[in-house]
Parts: sequence; structure tokens; C-alpha cells
Amino acid sequence: MKSSAIVLASRPAGAPSPENFRTEEIEIGTPRDGEVSLRVLYLSLDPYMRGRMSDAKSYAKPVEVGGVMTGETVCEVTQSRSPEFKEGDIVRAMTGWRTRAVMDASSVKRVNTHGAPASTALGVLGMPGFTAYGGMKVIGQPKSGETVVVAAASGPVGSLVGQLGMRVGARAVGIAGGRDKCDYVKNELGFDAVVDHRSPDFAFELAAVCPNGVDVYFENVGGHVWDAVLPLLNLYARVPVCGLIAQYNGPGKGENDRLPAAMSAVLRRSLLLRGFINTEFVPTHYEAFQQELGPLVASGEIKYREDMVDGLENAPEAFMGMLKGSNFGKLLVRVS
Amino acid sequence: MKSSAIVLASRPAGAPSPENFRTEEIEIGTPRDGEVSLRVLYLSLDPYMRGRMSDAKSYAKPVEVGGVMTGETVCEVTQSRSPEFKEGDIVRAMTGWRTRAVMDASSVKRVNTHGAPASTALGVLGMPGFTAYGGMKVIGQPKSGETVVVAAASGPVGSLVGQLGMRVGARAVGIAGGRDKCDYVKNELGFDAVVDHRSPDFAFELAAVCPNGVDVYFENVGGHVWDAVLPLLNLYARVPVCGLIAQYNGPGKGENDRLPAAMSAVLRRSLLLRGFINTEFVPTHYEAFQQELGPLVASGEIKYREDMVDGLENAPEAFMGMLKGSNFGKLLVRVS
Repeated sequence: MKSSAIVLASRPAGAPSPENFRTEEIEIGTPRDGEVSLRVLYLSLDPYMRGRMSDAKSYAKPVEVGGVMTGETVCEVTQSRSPEFKEGDIVRAMTGWRTRAVMDASSVKRVNTHGAPASTALGVLGMPGFTAYGGMKVIGQPKSGETVVVAAASGPVGSLVGQLGMRVGARAVGIAGGRDKCDYVKNELGFDAVVDHRSPDFAFELAAVCPNGVDVYFENVGGHVWDAVLPLLNLYARVPVCGLIAQYNGPGKGENDRLPAAMSAVLRRSLLLRGFINTEFVPTHYEAFQQELGPLVASGEIKYREDMVDGLENAPEAFMGMLKGSNFGKLLVRVS
Repeated sequence: MKSSAIVLASRPAGAPSPENFRTEEIEIGTPRDGEVSLRVLYLSLDPYMRGRMSDAKSYAKPVEVGGVMTGETVCEVTQSRSPEFKEGDIVRAMTGWRTRAVMDASSVKRVNTHGAPASTALGVLGMPGFTAYGGMKVIGQPKSGETVVVAAASGPVGSLVGQLGMRVGARAVGIAGGRDKCDYVKNELGFDAVVDHRSPDFAFELAAVCPNGVDVYFENVGGHVWDAVLPLLNLYARVPVCGLIAQYNGPGKGENDRLPAAMSAVLRRSLLLRGFINTEFVPTHYEAFQQELGPLVASGEIKYREDMVDGLENAPEAFMGMLKGSNFGKLLVRVS
């Protein structure tokens, strides 16, 4: 059996152009035991595919030149040689950019959209939606009365981030580009406020619609949106950082700007950064700390060192020395 | 009753000098109902006190010129007019830099060091120790076989961070300044490795003693230590960020370096930043996502928008447009 397919003709330098793609008819054969034959219904196009067109080092393998462009699809099973699937089943699969495919049944997932159109399995009920859901459930954790900010708010991730926030009683503030998208976010999705990031007064306008600051910033764009959100973040604000964003791969504000490298590391290696002042944990952990460590310090199992200075009158000199790093161990003054 | 006290004579410009301090005899009176009279045994000297000498905006009030220098002490109760305390009790209190004080009993905490010396209530069993404990329990969460890195490893916070890591079977790598402190960290505290941050090959040496990368970096210094640790951080590494660090208050690598402002915000506002790729949450959250959102999407309670392009042959153009932001809603190709 044959399939139309779009292959990577050449690697783009900068923005992809039509010459980087080529349509081919490829032979896909017929299913063997454990395989299914699929007719592609919908292909999802996503920003990450730009990365796969390059051979720069990344967390995923690049598409080979001459290879079929990678991508997730919703398909109908046309022939099954697996007990798991039958003809007519609707499934998700990584078939790539093509009209038909033969796949191992184990790599195919049944779609259950609970009555929503099958195409949603690639959007709001698929990986983009799950990115919003997972990031908000595990990291963002919005609470009633809090303010949630998300960029690309008309897109499949951002639109769900805001709606999930509103469902728990938080205020949703969207950022989008241009009048149409902003109108959609405000009027159709029902966000509490929306700001156009193309506005010359963007940072000011964002601050104006976040009078109580920002408690969750779902970071999916970076750049000047990050700069505008950072001063608004409240104590204990949460920032889920998702996706690979163009601005973080460039040099930011120049070679001396260390933020792009730091944020890129946060993103690519799923890092957790969390500021704290110990008093935050006193109510929940101070008792356990004393119970657990007191006996270990008393017995010598936990070691410590004190740098003891005699006499209150020597405190200023000891303090000044400490600021230069000259103490060795916990600096204390024996007062009496 | 009188007390010796060290007051802030003037605000320092840059490093404090002896003229910024003055010793005074102050009248403290006698305890009224609900108050206790205290004799100071030990005064803790800590870097945060430098901040209190300035009137720059901070999370805490500055010491007034002429006011007693702020500070935590361990004291003996010499007279009590509170049922909570009796003569001879050993307590912690924010008396400041002085020999005696009269305090409200409600502001005084009984010390229980489980047999360790009372002075430890200001160090390993006090706020520095609790900073290490809370940061590691709640944020760092080291596991057996992981690598924990901490700077200022001979100090009261860093020394406990490493020991807490080793107690759960993690490797502890300390960073300290100078031969004596490094020897202490390695030989007395028993860290698995130590690196001198003053070495010209510091970054290289740190990488060499972290052959499996870094899983927990307890950030208490910043600057060139952060730069050396960042490339070593593993997938899912945790970075508790504690204390106010000199390097983050300055311009870093110059005015264009946005990292100091970002890290300062993380620190001062106890922010959480967490990178993620949605696949991380599939095992734990995908079922719930489908169950919870499927019906809401099907019923229209959760709204979404698709940007549907007809025909596989139009996928390249649609993809190129998306990279310029021209799609509106989830971009899909209807293939058949």
C-alpha cells in the first residue's frame, strides 16, 4: 500500500521555506502480526517540529534529511492484526506527516474524548491540553482569589491554563498578540482580563490588570513578557516553565545576559528553583527539626563548629571579620 | 537595671567600620506582669545584620541610628513575672547586641537542645540549622545515590546541608574557601569531596568531583559558584535558594545581565520556578486529565479553538505560518 508523505528535503537556516519540504509517495506495505493499518484523519502541527528539522543537540532526535516529517496524528484503524484494535477504531499515533501508515499496535493509543470531536485528541484533550493540565495541577496549583497569568492565551495550552484557573476561582489574565486574539480570550474564553503584548505600554497595562500581583505565571514565551511579569510576582508565586521558547535560545540582552542560559537549563532539564526564608517552614517543620536533630547533635553524630568570641565589646570586630569571610564555623559572642 | 549595649552609631557606606558602632549603658527597668528579665549568654552574629544597618528597602525594618543592633541571643531567665518561665530557664530571644534585657514572655522561646550545649540553639540547632533542614526536607529532598552540592560548606547552614544529604545516602560535595575550611569539610564533617572556590580551576575541579552531575544544589552564595554548578545540574535537579547573597544585589555581569534580578526575586519573594515537559506527568496524571476534562470539553464548559487546514499538501505552508504566529487556535491539518 502507498501513502503520500511530506519529507524533510533539506535543513532550514533560520525560518523554514518551501524548499525544505518535498511530497513523496512511499510504500508502506501491509500489517503483519501485531500491527495495524491506519488512515490519517488529522495531523497536529506544533512548534517543537522546528527543532526536529535541525540537527542541533536536543532532547529528541532530529528528522533525517529525506525522512518523513515527525508529528502526531489522529487516525482510523483500517485493518488490524492486533487483538487490541479493530477496524474503525479511532487512535492517536506518531505517524508523521502522511496520509496512511502501518504501525505496531503497541505504539498506538485509543482515543477517548468522551464525546468531543476526535480532533480534540490533538489539542485541548491531547498533549497541548495535558501540558496545561499537568503544569497547573503539579506546579501552578492556583487557588481561589489568586491571579493566573498566561501568554499565548488564545492557543491550546494558554487557553486551557486560564480556564483551569477560573474553574478553581482564580482570576485569569491572558496575554495575546493582536485585536482578534485578545477579543477571543476575553469574550469567548471569558478571561477576566487580556493584554496585547504588542502594545507599546504592555508592561504598564499588564500591571494595571493585576492589581493584586501575580500568583501563577505559566511561562511559555519568555522574552519581554517575562520581564513584565517578574516585578508583579507575589510572595510564593509559582512559575511552571514549559516548552522551548525562541527567546531563550538567543543571547537575550547580549553576551553578558546570563538569564537565557539559566532559563534554558530550567526548561531543558526540568529544574526546580525555589526561594525560601526559613520562617516559612517553622509551623510545619520546626518541631520535627528539634526532635530529630537535637539528639544527633548531642551524641556527636551530627557535627558542628562554633567560632566563639569572648565579650560583647568584641562583637563589632567579629562581625566585620565575618563579612570578609574570616570566621570559621558559626560565629557567636559569649556575652556572659 | 542597666545593660551594656552596642548601638548603630552611623550607617556604613560599603563595608562597616568601627565608627559605625558605639557601646552604651542603657536603662532596661524591671519586668512587669508577663515579662521576664534576661541575662544574655550568647549572641549570634549573622550576615543578614549587614542589611539591617542600611535603610535600603528590604523585607525587614532597618535598625535606627542610635538603636541597639538587632540579633538573636541565648539567655538565662534571671527574674520571671510570667507563669511560662522560671528563674534559670534557658531561652532564645531577639534581645539584640546587649548584656541584659527585659522582654515580653510571649516573644521568648524555651531552648531544648536535647543535651547539646545551649549555644547550639543559635547554630546547628537554631535558625541556621533549620534553614538547612527546611530547605532540604521541603525543596531539596535528596535521595540515596544522588549528589548534593553546597557552598560555604564549613558554615552552620552548609555543614548541615551536606550531613543531611549523607544521612539519606547521597554524596555530599562541599565548596569552601581556603585550605583549612576545605580540610575541615572533608576530614571532620566527612563530605565525599570538597572544592576550594578560590582555585583558578574551580569550575573544572567541581565538575571532576561530580561525575554523575548534581541533583541538589543548595544555593546560598550565587556568583561564580552558580555559574559552575548550572551546567552540572541533572534532569529534575532541585535548587533551594536561601538567604540574601551579595552577588545578586549587584549588577552581575553588567547592566544587561538579567539573572541577578531574577534570582533576587526568587529569593526575596520565595518564588518557585519549575521546568517540565508534559510527558513527565503522564504516568501520574494522564488518566485523571482525560476523565476530568473530556466531558467538560464535550459539553462545551471548557472552550477550545481549532485552526483547521485542509489537505496534507498544505501542511508546510501552515507550519511556516504558525512559526510566525499567524495561526489562531490549535493548528491541525485535516488529512482525509
